[in-house]
Amino acid sequence: MTEAEFLAALRQLPLHPGARGLADDAALVAGLVVTTDTLVEGVHYLPSDPPQDVAWKLVAVNLSDLAAKGAVPEGVLLNLPLGGEAWDRPFLAGLAEILHAYDVPLIGGDTVSLPAGAPRVLTCTAIGRDAAAPLRSGARAGDALWVTGTIGDAGLGLAVARDGEGPAALLAAYRRPLPRLDEGRALAPHVHAMADVSDGLLIDAARMAAASGLAARIDLAAVPLSPHAPADRPGRLAAATAGDDYQLLFAAPAGWTPPVPATGIGRFAAGTGIALVDGDEAVPLPPLLGFEHACIARLP
Amino acid sequence: MTEAEFLAALRQLPLHPGARGLADDAALVAGLVVTTDTLVEGVHYLPSDPPQDVAWKLVAVNLSDLAAKGAVPEGVLLNLPLGGEAWDRPFLAGLAEILHAYDVPLIGGDTVSLPAGAPRVLTCTAIGRDAAAPLRSGARAGDALWVTGTIGDAGLGLAVARDGEGPAALLAAYRRPLPRLDEGRALAPHVHAMADVSDGLLIDAARMAAASGLAARIDLAAVPLSPHAPADRPGRLAAATAGDDYQLLFAAPAGWTPPVPATGIGRFAAGTGIALVDGDEAVPLPPLLGFEHACIARLP
Repeated sequence: MTEAEFLAALRQLPLHPGARGLADDAALVAGLVVTTDTLVEGVHYLPSDPPQDVAWKLVAVNLSDLAAKGAVPEGVLLNLPLGGEAWDRPFLAGLAEILHAYDVPLIGGDTVSLPAGAPRVLTCTAIGRDAAAPLRSGARAGDALWVTGTIGDAGLGLAVARDGEGPAALLAAYRRPLPRLDEGRALAPHVHAMADVSDGLLIDAARMAAASGLAARIDLAAVPLSPHAPADRPGRLAAATAGDDYQLLFAAPAGWTPPVPATGIGRFAAGTGIALVDGDEAVPLPPLLGFEHACIARLP
Repeated sequence: MTEAEFLAALRQLPLHPGARGLADDAALVAGLVVTTDTLVEGVHYLPSDPPQDVAWKLVAVNLSDLAAKGAVPEGVLLNLPLGGEAWDRPFLAGLAEILHAYDVPLIGGDTVSLPAGAPRVLTCTAIGRDAAAPLRSGARAGDALWVTGTIGDAGLGLAVARDGEGPAALLAAYRRPLPRLDEGRALAPHVHAMADVSDGLLIDAARMAAASGLAARIDLAAVPLSPHAPADRPGRLAAATAGDDYQLLFAAPAGWTPPVPATGIGRFAAGTGIALVDGDEAVPLPPLLGFEHACIARLP
Protein backbone atom coordinates (compact mmCIF):
# COMPACT_ATOMS: atom_id res chain seq x y z
CA MET A 1 0.00 0.00 0.00
CA THR A 2 1.11 3.56 -0.55
CA GLU A 3 1.34 5.86 2.42
CA ALA A 4 -1.79 7.63 1.25
CA GLU A 5 -3.70 4.34 1.09
CA PHE A 6 -2.35 3.31 4.49
CA LEU A 7 -3.39 6.63 6.02
CA ALA A 8 -6.80 6.39 4.41
CA ALA A 9 -7.18 2.93 5.96
CA LEU A 10 -6.10 4.23 9.37
CA ARG A 11 -8.79 6.91 9.11
CA GLN A 12 -11.35 4.09 8.91
CA LEU A 13 -10.34 2.96 12.41
CA PRO A 14 -12.02 4.43 15.48
CA LEU A 15 -10.43 7.87 15.86
CA HIS A 16 -10.01 9.92 19.00
CA PRO A 17 -11.72 13.33 18.69
CA GLY A 18 -8.37 14.95 19.47
CA ALA A 19 -6.79 13.15 16.52
CA ARG A 20 -8.50 15.67 14.26
CA GLY A 21 -8.97 13.09 11.55
CA LEU A 22 -5.22 12.36 11.54
CA ALA A 23 -4.80 15.56 9.54
CA ASP A 24 -2.50 17.42 11.89
CA ASP A 25 1.00 16.88 13.30
CA ALA A 26 -0.23 16.66 16.88
CA ALA A 27 -3.28 15.47 18.76
CA LEU A 28 -5.09 16.99 21.71
CA VAL A 29 -5.82 14.64 24.61
CA ALA A 30 -7.37 15.91 27.82
CA GLY A 31 -5.84 19.33 27.31
CA LEU A 32 -2.41 17.98 26.43
CA VAL A 33 -0.71 18.10 23.03
CA VAL A 34 0.71 14.73 21.96
CA THR A 35 2.96 14.11 18.97
CA THR A 36 5.29 11.31 17.90
CA ASP A 37 7.95 10.86 15.23
CA THR A 38 10.19 7.99 14.28
CA LEU A 39 13.67 8.29 12.77
CA VAL A 40 15.11 5.42 10.74
CA GLU A 41 18.85 5.05 10.11
CA GLY A 42 19.55 5.45 6.42
CA VAL A 43 16.12 6.96 5.80
CA HIS A 44 15.79 9.98 8.11
CA TYR A 45 19.43 10.33 9.02
CA LEU A 46 22.76 9.20 7.61
CA PRO A 47 24.46 6.19 9.17
CA SER A 48 27.50 8.48 9.45
CA ASP A 49 25.65 11.13 11.49
CA PRO A 50 27.13 11.27 15.00
CA PRO A 51 24.99 9.52 17.64
CA GLN A 52 24.80 12.67 19.79
CA ASP A 53 23.33 14.58 16.85
CA VAL A 54 20.81 11.80 16.13
CA ALA A 55 19.67 12.04 19.76
CA TRP A 56 19.35 15.80 19.45
CA LYS A 57 17.39 15.54 16.21
CA LEU A 58 15.08 12.80 17.49
CA VAL A 59 13.91 15.02 20.33
CA ALA A 60 14.11 18.29 18.37
CA VAL A 61 11.76 17.20 15.59
CA ASN A 62 9.14 16.31 18.16
CA LEU A 63 9.60 19.53 20.15
CA SER A 64 9.15 21.34 16.83
CA ASP A 65 5.65 19.85 16.56
CA LEU A 66 4.93 21.11 20.08
CA ALA A 67 6.26 24.52 19.04
CA ALA A 68 3.77 24.65 16.17
CA LYS A 69 1.00 24.24 18.74
CA GLY A 70 2.44 26.86 21.08
CA ALA A 71 2.85 24.22 23.79
CA VAL A 72 5.19 24.11 26.77
CA PRO A 73 6.98 20.73 26.74
CA GLU A 74 5.77 18.51 29.55
CA GLY A 75 8.20 15.73 28.68
CA VAL A 76 9.15 13.00 26.22
CA LEU A 77 8.99 9.22 25.96
CA LEU A 78 11.76 7.47 24.06
CA ASN A 79 11.79 4.08 22.33
CA LEU A 80 15.43 3.29 21.75
CA PRO A 81 17.53 0.40 20.48
CA LEU A 82 20.55 -0.51 22.55
CA GLY A 83 23.32 0.29 20.14
CA GLY A 84 26.60 -0.87 21.62
CA GLU A 85 29.11 1.10 23.66
CA ALA A 86 30.35 3.31 20.82
CA TRP A 87 26.81 4.41 20.04
CA ASP A 88 25.11 4.48 23.42
CA ARG A 89 27.43 6.86 25.32
CA PRO A 90 27.47 9.69 22.76
CA PHE A 91 23.77 9.15 22.11
CA LEU A 92 23.01 9.58 25.80
CA ALA A 93 25.24 12.68 25.87
CA GLY A 94 23.26 14.23 23.00
CA LEU A 95 20.05 13.35 24.77
CA ALA A 96 21.22 15.08 27.92
CA GLU A 97 22.18 18.15 25.88
CA ILE A 98 18.79 18.71 24.31
CA LEU A 99 16.76 17.80 27.38
CA HIS A 100 18.73 20.33 29.41
CA ALA A 101 18.72 22.92 26.61
CA TYR A 102 14.93 22.95 26.42
CA ASP A 103 14.21 21.97 30.01
CA VAL A 104 12.38 18.81 28.97
CA PRO A 105 12.11 15.88 31.40
CA LEU A 106 12.04 12.22 30.43
CA ILE A 107 8.64 10.63 31.11
CA GLY A 108 9.44 7.06 30.10
CA GLY A 109 9.98 4.82 27.13
CA ASP A 110 11.28 1.42 26.14
CA THR A 111 14.66 0.01 25.18
CA VAL A 112 15.00 -2.91 22.79
CA SER A 113 17.71 -4.95 21.16
CA LEU A 114 17.71 -5.18 17.38
CA PRO A 115 18.89 -8.15 15.34
CA ALA A 116 22.55 -7.79 14.34
CA GLY A 117 23.00 -5.40 11.44
CA ALA A 118 19.47 -4.02 11.53
CA PRO A 119 19.14 -0.28 10.92
CA ARG A 120 18.32 1.67 14.05
CA VAL A 121 14.73 2.80 14.47
CA LEU A 122 14.18 5.45 17.13
CA THR A 123 10.89 6.91 18.32
CA CYS A 124 10.16 9.95 20.44
CA THR A 125 6.74 10.91 21.74
CA ALA A 126 6.45 14.44 23.09
CA ILE A 127 3.74 15.75 25.37
CA GLY A 128 3.05 19.47 25.79
CA ARG A 129 0.72 21.56 27.89
CA ASP A 130 -0.87 24.97 27.98
CA ALA A 131 -1.19 25.24 24.21
CA ALA A 132 -3.32 27.59 22.16
CA ALA A 133 -2.96 24.76 19.60
CA PRO A 134 -3.76 26.44 16.28
CA LEU A 135 -4.73 23.95 13.61
CA ARG A 136 -2.94 23.35 10.35
CA SER A 137 -6.35 23.81 8.75
CA GLY A 138 -7.30 27.22 10.13
CA ALA A 139 -6.03 29.55 7.40
CA ARG A 140 -8.60 31.98 5.97
CA ALA A 141 -8.87 33.59 2.58
CA GLY A 142 -6.89 36.82 2.62
CA ASP A 143 -4.51 35.63 5.35
CA ALA A 144 -0.83 36.31 4.92
CA LEU A 145 1.58 33.36 5.00
CA TRP A 146 4.66 33.83 7.17
CA VAL A 147 7.71 31.82 8.08
CA THR A 148 10.24 32.23 10.88
CA GLY A 149 14.01 32.15 10.37
CA THR A 150 15.67 31.12 7.13
CA ILE A 151 14.84 28.25 4.81
CA GLY A 152 17.03 25.70 3.07
CA ASP A 153 20.10 25.56 5.31
CA ALA A 154 19.36 22.05 6.55
CA GLY A 155 19.05 20.83 2.96
CA LEU A 156 22.46 22.32 2.21
CA GLY A 157 23.74 20.82 5.46
CA LEU A 158 22.68 17.36 4.33
CA ALA A 159 24.93 17.82 1.29
CA VAL A 160 27.75 18.92 3.59
CA ALA A 161 27.24 15.80 5.70
CA ARG A 162 27.32 13.62 2.60
CA ASP A 163 30.33 15.35 1.03
CA GLY A 164 32.28 15.70 4.24
CA GLU A 165 33.06 19.36 3.64
CA GLY A 166 31.31 22.70 3.81
CA PRO A 167 30.25 25.35 6.31
CA ALA A 168 29.80 24.11 9.88
CA ALA A 169 26.70 26.30 10.23
CA LEU A 170 24.94 24.34 7.50
CA LEU A 171 25.93 21.01 9.01
CA ALA A 172 24.54 22.21 12.34
CA ALA A 173 21.29 23.29 10.68
CA TYR A 174 20.87 19.75 9.38
CA ARG A 175 22.05 17.83 12.42
CA ARG A 176 20.99 20.07 15.28
CA PRO A 177 17.70 21.75 14.35
CA LEU A 178 16.43 24.23 16.89
CA PRO A 179 12.74 23.79 17.70
CA ARG A 180 11.08 27.22 17.75
CA LEU A 181 9.36 26.81 21.09
CA ASP A 182 9.57 30.47 22.16
CA GLU A 183 8.34 31.68 18.80
CA GLY A 184 5.52 29.15 18.87
CA ARG A 185 4.43 30.34 22.33
CA ALA A 186 4.37 33.94 21.14
CA LEU A 187 2.56 33.20 17.89
CA ALA A 188 0.07 30.47 18.73
CA PRO A 189 -2.59 32.59 20.47
CA HIS A 190 -2.74 34.99 17.51
CA VAL A 191 -2.39 33.00 14.30
CA HIS A 192 -5.13 31.26 12.30
CA ALA A 193 -3.03 28.22 11.37
CA MET A 194 0.48 27.00 12.14
CA ALA A 195 2.72 24.05 11.29
CA ASP A 196 6.43 23.41 11.31
CA VAL A 197 8.45 23.19 8.12
CA SER A 198 9.70 19.63 8.29
CA ASP A 199 9.35 18.21 4.79
CA GLY A 200 9.94 21.38 2.78
CA LEU A 201 8.45 24.88 2.67
CA LEU A 202 6.38 24.31 -0.47
CA ILE A 203 4.93 20.97 0.54
CA ASP A 204 4.16 22.14 4.06
CA ALA A 205 2.52 25.29 2.69
CA ALA A 206 0.56 23.17 0.21
CA ARG A 207 -0.64 20.97 3.07
CA MET A 208 -1.77 23.99 5.07
CA ALA A 209 -3.64 25.34 2.04
CA ALA A 210 -5.24 21.97 1.31
CA ALA A 211 -6.21 21.41 4.95
CA SER A 212 -7.74 24.88 5.03
CA GLY A 213 -9.59 24.39 1.74
CA LEU A 214 -7.75 27.29 0.16
CA ALA A 215 -5.19 28.19 -2.46
CA ALA A 216 -1.85 29.72 -1.53
CA ARG A 217 0.43 31.93 -3.57
CA ILE A 218 4.08 31.96 -2.53
CA ASP A 219 6.65 34.51 -3.62
CA LEU A 220 9.95 32.74 -4.13
CA ALA A 221 11.77 36.08 -4.03
CA ALA A 222 10.50 36.64 -0.49
CA VAL A 223 11.61 33.28 0.91
CA PRO A 224 14.19 34.13 3.57
CA LEU A 225 17.59 32.59 2.88
CA SER A 226 20.76 32.53 4.93
CA PRO A 227 23.97 33.99 3.44
CA HIS A 228 25.04 30.40 2.70
CA ALA A 229 22.20 29.73 0.27
CA PRO A 230 22.49 30.64 -3.42
CA ALA A 231 19.89 33.35 -4.06
CA ASP A 232 19.35 32.57 -7.74
CA ARG A 233 16.17 30.83 -8.78
CA PRO A 234 17.53 27.26 -8.69
CA GLY A 235 18.94 27.98 -5.25
CA ARG A 236 15.63 29.41 -4.06
CA LEU A 237 13.71 26.45 -5.43
CA ALA A 238 16.12 24.07 -3.74
CA ALA A 239 15.69 25.89 -0.44
CA ALA A 240 11.90 25.92 -0.72
CA THR A 241 11.75 22.18 -1.35
CA ALA A 242 14.44 21.01 1.08
CA GLY A 243 13.26 19.54 4.35
CA ASP A 244 14.40 19.58 7.96
CA ASP A 245 14.14 23.35 8.47
CA TYR A 246 11.91 23.14 11.56
CA GLN A 247 10.90 26.75 11.18
CA LEU A 248 7.31 27.77 11.86
CA LEU A 249 4.93 28.43 9.00
CA PHE A 250 1.80 30.36 9.91
CA ALA A 251 -1.26 32.09 8.55
CA ALA A 252 -2.36 35.38 10.05
CA PRO A 253 -4.69 38.22 9.11
CA ALA A 254 -3.37 40.61 6.51
CA GLY A 255 -1.90 43.69 8.13
CA TRP A 256 -1.06 41.97 11.41
CA THR A 257 2.57 42.10 12.51
CA PRO A 258 4.02 39.01 14.21
CA PRO A 259 5.55 39.50 17.67
CA VAL A 260 8.69 37.57 16.65
CA PRO A 261 10.99 37.90 13.62
CA ALA A 262 9.31 36.36 10.60
CA THR A 263 9.01 36.91 6.88
CA GLY A 264 5.83 37.27 4.87
CA ILE A 265 6.11 34.95 1.88
CA GLY A 266 2.64 34.66 0.46
CA ARG A 267 -1.09 34.82 0.76
CA PHE A 268 -4.12 32.54 0.98
CA ALA A 269 -7.11 32.93 -1.29
CA ALA A 270 -10.19 31.01 -2.33
CA GLY A 271 -9.33 28.09 -4.57
CA THR A 272 -7.05 25.08 -4.39
CA GLY A 273 -3.38 24.30 -4.86
CA ILE A 274 -0.33 26.47 -4.59
CA ALA A 275 1.07 28.91 -7.09
CA LEU A 276 4.64 30.09 -7.17
CA VAL A 277 5.83 33.52 -8.28
CA ASP A 278 9.24 35.15 -8.34
CA GLY A 279 8.41 38.80 -7.84
CA ASP A 280 6.04 39.49 -10.71
CA GLU A 281 6.84 36.39 -12.71
CA ALA A 282 4.91 33.12 -12.46
CA VAL A 283 7.19 30.15 -11.82
CA PRO A 284 6.21 26.55 -12.65
CA LEU A 285 5.99 24.31 -9.59
CA PRO A 286 8.93 21.95 -9.26
CA PRO A 287 8.11 18.24 -9.70
CA LEU A 288 8.68 17.60 -6.00
CA LEU A 289 7.45 20.12 -3.46
CA GLY A 290 9.41 18.52 -0.65
CA PHE A 291 10.37 15.25 0.94
CA GLU A 292 7.00 13.64 0.34
CA HIS A 293 8.90 10.68 -1.02
CA ALA A 294 11.12 10.55 2.02
CA CYS A 295 8.83 8.32 3.89
CA ILE A 296 7.32 10.10 6.84
CA ALA A 297 3.61 10.52 6.78
CA ARG A 298 2.61 12.36 9.88
CA LEU A 299 -0.57 10.80 11.22
CA PRO A 300 -0.44 13.50 13.25
CA MET B 1 26.36 -0.83 27.42
CA THR B 2 24.11 -3.35 29.11
CA GLU B 3 20.45 -2.51 29.49
CA ALA B 4 21.01 -1.94 33.19
CA GLU B 5 23.82 0.52 32.48
CA PHE B 6 21.71 2.25 29.83
CA LEU B 7 18.79 2.57 32.21
CA ALA B 8 21.07 3.86 34.94
CA ALA B 9 22.33 6.50 32.51
CA LEU B 10 18.77 7.47 31.55
CA ARG B 11 18.00 7.95 35.24
CA GLN B 12 20.71 10.64 35.29
CA LEU B 13 18.70 12.68 32.78
CA PRO B 14 16.08 15.17 33.97
CA LEU B 15 13.11 12.98 34.94
CA HIS B 16 9.44 13.89 35.01
CA PRO B 17 7.94 13.43 38.50
CA GLY B 18 5.37 11.11 36.93
CA ALA B 19 8.15 8.90 35.58
CA ARG B 20 8.59 7.53 39.10
CA GLY B 21 12.30 7.15 38.61
CA LEU B 22 11.71 4.99 35.50
CA ALA B 23 10.92 2.12 37.87
CA ASP B 24 7.38 1.40 36.73
CA ASP B 25 5.72 0.26 33.49
CA ALA B 26 3.72 3.44 33.11
CA ALA B 27 4.06 7.13 33.91
CA LEU B 28 1.53 9.59 35.26
CA VAL B 29 1.23 12.88 33.38
CA ALA B 30 -1.40 15.44 34.30
CA GLY B 31 -3.70 12.73 35.58
CA LEU B 32 -3.21 10.48 32.57
CA VAL B 33 -1.40 7.14 32.50
CA VAL B 34 1.14 6.88 29.66
CA THR B 35 2.99 3.75 28.60
CA THR B 36 4.89 2.67 25.50
CA ASP B 37 6.29 -0.58 24.16
CA THR B 38 8.18 -1.50 21.03
CA LEU B 39 8.03 -4.85 19.25
CA VAL B 40 10.90 -5.94 17.02
CA GLU B 41 10.49 -8.62 14.34
CA GLY B 42 12.63 -11.62 15.22
CA VAL B 43 13.07 -10.40 18.79
CA HIS B 44 9.59 -9.91 20.25
CA TYR B 45 7.67 -11.84 17.66
CA LEU B 46 8.42 -14.48 15.04
CA PRO B 47 8.79 -13.36 11.42
CA SER B 48 6.21 -16.07 10.67
CA ASP B 49 3.60 -14.63 13.04
CA PRO B 50 0.60 -13.38 11.02
CA PRO B 51 0.51 -9.59 10.60
CA GLN B 52 -2.98 -9.35 12.10
CA ASP B 53 -1.73 -11.05 15.25
CA VAL B 54 1.30 -8.76 15.45
CA ALA B 55 -1.05 -5.78 15.30
CA TRP B 56 -3.19 -7.28 18.04
CA LYS B 57 -0.19 -7.99 20.24
CA LEU B 58 1.36 -4.56 19.70
CA VAL B 59 -1.73 -2.86 21.08
CA ALA B 60 -2.54 -5.57 23.64
CA VAL B 61 0.80 -5.40 25.46
CA ASN B 62 0.33 -1.67 25.93
CA LEU B 63 -3.28 -2.00 27.06
CA SER B 64 -2.00 -4.57 29.56
CA ASP B 65 0.16 -1.87 31.14
CA LEU B 66 -2.91 0.36 31.37
CA ALA B 67 -4.79 -2.55 32.95
CA ALA B 68 -2.14 -2.83 35.67
CA LYS B 69 -2.88 0.80 36.55
CA GLY B 70 -6.63 0.31 36.51
CA ALA B 71 -6.94 2.85 33.69
CA VAL B 72 -9.63 3.29 31.07
CA PRO B 73 -7.92 3.46 27.65
CA GLU B 74 -8.10 6.96 26.22
CA GLY B 75 -6.38 5.95 22.99
CA VAL B 76 -3.16 4.83 21.33
CA LEU B 77 -0.48 6.29 19.09
CA LEU B 78 1.20 3.97 16.59
CA ASN B 79 4.61 4.22 14.93
CA LEU B 80 4.46 1.79 12.05
CA PRO B 81 6.62 0.78 9.11
CA LEU B 82 4.89 0.51 5.77
CA GLY B 83 5.27 -3.18 5.05
CA GLY B 84 4.03 -3.87 1.57
CA GLU B 85 0.58 -4.98 0.44
CA ALA B 86 0.78 -8.52 1.85
CA TRP B 87 1.63 -7.18 5.29
CA ASP B 88 -0.30 -3.93 5.50
CA ARG B 89 -3.85 -5.16 4.81
CA PRO B 90 -3.92 -7.98 7.39
CA PHE B 91 -2.01 -5.77 9.85
CA LEU B 92 -4.69 -3.07 9.52
CA ALA B 93 -7.38 -5.72 9.95
CA GLY B 94 -5.81 -6.92 13.19
CA LEU B 95 -5.54 -3.33 14.36
CA ALA B 96 -9.22 -2.76 13.68
CA GLU B 97 -10.07 -5.93 15.60
CA ILE B 98 -8.34 -4.97 18.81
CA LEU B 99 -9.31 -1.30 18.72
CA HIS B 100 -12.95 -2.30 18.34
CA ALA B 101 -12.68 -5.14 20.86
CA TYR B 102 -11.46 -2.81 23.61
CA ASP B 103 -13.14 0.37 22.38
CA VAL B 104 -9.82 2.16 21.96
CA PRO B 105 -9.54 5.08 19.52
CA LEU B 106 -6.45 5.99 17.50
CA ILE B 107 -4.90 9.26 18.65
CA GLY B 108 -2.11 9.54 16.11
CA GLY B 109 1.28 8.17 15.20
CA ASP B 110 3.81 8.07 12.42
CA THR B 111 4.41 5.82 9.43
CA VAL B 112 7.89 5.25 8.04
CA SER B 113 9.58 3.25 5.33
CA LEU B 114 12.37 0.92 6.35
CA PRO B 115 15.40 0.03 4.23
CA ALA B 116 14.79 -3.14 2.21
CA GLY B 117 15.15 -6.26 4.30
CA ALA B 118 15.23 -4.45 7.64
CA PRO B 119 13.31 -6.14 10.46
CA ARG B 120 10.08 -4.38 11.33
CA VAL B 121 10.09 -2.23 14.45
CA LEU B 122 6.66 -1.23 15.73
CA THR B 123 5.83 1.08 18.61
CA CYS B 124 2.58 1.68 20.42
CA THR B 125 2.03 4.36 23.05
CA ALA B 126 -1.12 4.00 25.11
CA ILE B 127 -2.79 6.70 27.16
CA GLY B 128 -5.29 5.92 29.90
CA ARG B 129 -7.46 7.95 32.22
CA ASP B 130 -9.29 7.68 35.51
CA ALA B 131 -6.73 5.35 37.06
CA ALA B 132 -6.19 4.47 40.69
CA ALA B 133 -2.68 3.73 39.41
CA PRO B 134 -1.20 1.43 42.05
CA LEU B 135 2.59 1.33 41.96
CA ARG B 136 4.73 -1.70 41.31
CA SER B 137 6.55 -0.69 44.48
CA GLY B 138 3.64 -0.55 46.92
CA ALA B 139 3.67 -4.07 48.37
CA ARG B 140 3.83 -4.29 52.17
CA ALA B 141 5.25 -6.96 54.44
CA GLY B 142 2.54 -9.52 55.11
CA ASP B 143 0.71 -8.84 51.85
CA ALA B 144 -0.51 -11.78 49.82
CA LEU B 145 0.65 -12.10 46.21
CA TRP B 146 -2.08 -12.89 43.69
CA VAL B 147 -2.28 -13.49 39.98
CA THR B 148 -5.24 -13.50 37.60
CA GLY B 149 -5.92 -16.25 35.06
CA THR B 150 -3.47 -19.02 34.24
CA ILE B 151 0.27 -18.80 33.70
CA GLY B 152 2.51 -20.32 31.06
CA ASP B 153 0.14 -20.80 28.14
CA ALA B 154 1.78 -18.12 26.01
CA GLY B 155 5.16 -19.75 26.54
CA LEU B 156 3.73 -23.05 25.35
CA GLY B 157 2.06 -21.19 22.49
CA LEU B 158 5.42 -19.82 21.35
CA ALA B 159 6.60 -23.43 21.01
CA VAL B 160 3.44 -24.23 19.02
CA ALA B 161 4.14 -21.28 16.73
CA ARG B 162 7.73 -22.46 16.23
CA ASP B 163 6.82 -26.12 15.71
CA GLY B 164 3.78 -25.47 13.57
CA GLU B 165 1.57 -27.82 15.58
CA GLY B 166 -0.21 -27.91 18.89
CA PRO B 167 -3.39 -26.68 20.57
CA ALA B 168 -4.95 -23.58 19.01
CA ALA B 169 -5.72 -22.21 22.46
CA LEU B 170 -2.00 -22.05 23.27
CA LEU B 171 -1.19 -20.38 19.98
CA ALA B 172 -3.89 -17.82 20.70
CA ALA B 173 -2.50 -17.19 24.18
CA TYR B 174 0.86 -16.36 22.60
CA ARG B 175 -0.36 -14.39 19.60
CA ARG B 176 -3.52 -12.75 20.93
CA PRO B 177 -3.01 -11.90 24.58
CA LEU B 178 -6.05 -10.42 26.29
CA PRO B 179 -5.26 -7.33 28.34
CA ARG B 180 -7.05 -7.60 31.70
CA LEU B 181 -8.63 -4.16 31.62
CA ASP B 182 -11.82 -5.08 33.49
CA GLU B 183 -9.88 -6.94 36.15
CA GLY B 184 -7.47 -4.03 36.48
CA ARG B 185 -10.36 -1.57 36.97
CA ALA B 186 -11.85 -3.75 39.69
CA LEU B 187 -8.56 -4.37 41.48
CA ALA B 188 -6.64 -1.11 41.21
CA PRO B 189 -8.49 0.89 43.89
CA HIS B 190 -7.92 -1.87 46.47
CA VAL B 191 -4.48 -3.37 45.92
CA HIS B 192 -1.15 -2.19 47.34
CA ALA B 193 0.87 -2.94 44.20
CA MET B 194 0.10 -4.22 40.72
CA ALA B 195 1.96 -5.05 37.49
CA ASP B 196 1.30 -7.19 34.49
CA VAL B 197 3.10 -10.48 33.92
CA SER B 198 4.93 -9.73 30.70
CA ASP B 199 8.40 -11.19 31.09
CA GLY B 200 7.58 -14.15 33.34
CA LEU B 201 5.82 -14.67 36.66
CA LEU B 202 8.98 -15.11 38.71
CA ILE B 203 10.87 -12.17 37.28
CA ASP B 204 7.87 -9.86 37.49
CA ALA B 205 7.26 -10.96 41.08
CA ALA B 206 10.94 -10.43 41.85
CA ARG B 207 10.72 -6.92 40.40
CA MET B 208 7.68 -6.13 42.52
CA ALA B 209 9.46 -7.40 45.62
CA ALA B 210 12.64 -5.46 44.81
CA ALA B 211 10.73 -2.26 44.01
CA SER B 212 8.85 -2.61 47.30
CA GLY B 213 12.02 -3.33 49.30
CA LEU B 214 10.72 -6.72 50.36
CA ALA B 215 11.24 -10.44 49.96
CA ALA B 216 8.61 -12.63 48.30
CA ARG B 217 7.92 -16.32 48.74
CA ILE B 218 6.10 -18.03 45.88
CA ASP B 219 4.47 -21.44 46.06
CA LEU B 220 5.02 -23.19 42.77
CA ALA B 221 2.24 -25.66 43.61
CA ALA B 222 -0.23 -22.78 43.76
CA VAL B 223 0.67 -21.24 40.39
CA PRO B 224 -2.50 -21.54 38.29
CA LEU B 225 -2.00 -23.59 35.14
CA SER B 226 -4.32 -24.30 32.26
CA PRO B 227 -5.17 -27.92 31.41
CA HIS B 228 -2.63 -27.66 28.58
CA ALA B 229 0.34 -27.12 30.88
CA PRO B 230 2.25 -30.04 32.39
CA ALA B 231 1.70 -29.85 36.14
CA ASP B 232 4.93 -31.55 37.15
CA ARG B 233 7.72 -29.46 38.60
CA PRO B 234 9.59 -28.85 35.32
CA GLY B 235 6.29 -27.82 33.72
CA ARG B 236 5.49 -25.49 36.60
CA LEU B 237 8.94 -23.94 36.49
CA ALA B 238 8.61 -23.46 32.74
CA ALA B 239 5.23 -21.78 33.19
CA ALA B 240 6.50 -19.51 35.95
CA THR B 241 9.43 -18.33 33.85
CA ALA B 242 7.71 -18.04 30.47
CA GLY B 243 6.74 -14.57 29.34
CA ASP B 244 3.84 -12.98 27.46
CA ASP B 245 1.10 -14.02 29.92
CA TYR B 246 -0.28 -10.48 30.40
CA GLN B 247 -2.08 -11.52 33.53
CA LEU B 248 -2.18 -9.16 36.50
CA LEU B 249 0.08 -9.73 39.47
CA PHE B 250 -0.89 -7.88 42.62
CA ALA B 251 -0.18 -7.46 46.30
CA ALA B 252 -3.06 -7.10 48.73
CA PRO B 253 -3.57 -7.33 52.49
CA ALA B 254 -3.69 -10.85 53.90
CA GLY B 255 -7.27 -12.00 54.37
CA TRP B 256 -8.67 -9.74 51.62
CA THR B 257 -10.59 -11.43 48.84
CA PRO B 258 -10.18 -10.03 45.30
CA PRO B 259 -13.38 -8.99 43.50
CA VAL B 260 -12.31 -10.91 40.36
CA PRO B 261 -11.09 -14.49 39.88
CA ALA B 262 -7.47 -14.72 41.00
CA THR B 263 -5.13 -17.15 42.72
CA GLY B 264 -3.03 -16.53 45.81
CA ILE B 265 0.48 -17.71 45.01
CA GLY B 266 2.68 -16.25 47.70
CA ARG B 267 3.45 -13.68 50.34
CA PHE B 268 5.66 -10.67 50.93
CA ALA B 269 7.87 -10.35 53.97
CA ALA B 270 10.72 -8.22 55.22
CA GLY B 271 13.95 -9.05 53.43
CA THR B 272 15.13 -9.22 49.84
CA GLY B 273 14.91 -11.59 46.91
CA ILE B 274 12.41 -14.27 46.08
CA ALA B 275 12.18 -17.79 47.45
CA LEU B 276 10.42 -20.64 45.72
CA VAL B 277 8.62 -23.50 47.44
CA ASP B 278 6.60 -26.41 46.09
CA GLY B 279 4.12 -27.01 48.86
CA ASP B 280 6.37 -27.59 51.88
CA GLU B 281 9.55 -28.16 49.94
CA ALA B 282 12.07 -25.43 49.12
CA VAL B 283 12.89 -25.29 45.40
CA PRO B 284 16.10 -23.75 44.03
CA LEU B 285 15.48 -20.73 41.82
CA PRO B 286 15.95 -21.49 38.12
CA PRO B 287 18.91 -19.76 36.46
CA LEU B 288 16.56 -17.48 34.49
CA LEU B 289 13.50 -16.04 36.21
CA GLY B 290 11.99 -14.89 32.94
CA PHE B 291 12.67 -13.17 29.66
CA GLU B 292 15.12 -10.71 31.14
CA HIS B 293 17.43 -11.63 28.31
CA ALA B 294 14.71 -11.03 25.77
CA CYS B 295 15.60 -7.46 25.34
CA ILE B 296 12.85 -5.25 26.65
CA ALA B 297 13.69 -3.08 29.55
CA ARG B 298 10.62 -1.18 30.48
CA LEU B 299 11.63 2.38 31.33
CA PRO B 300 8.40 2.54 32.41
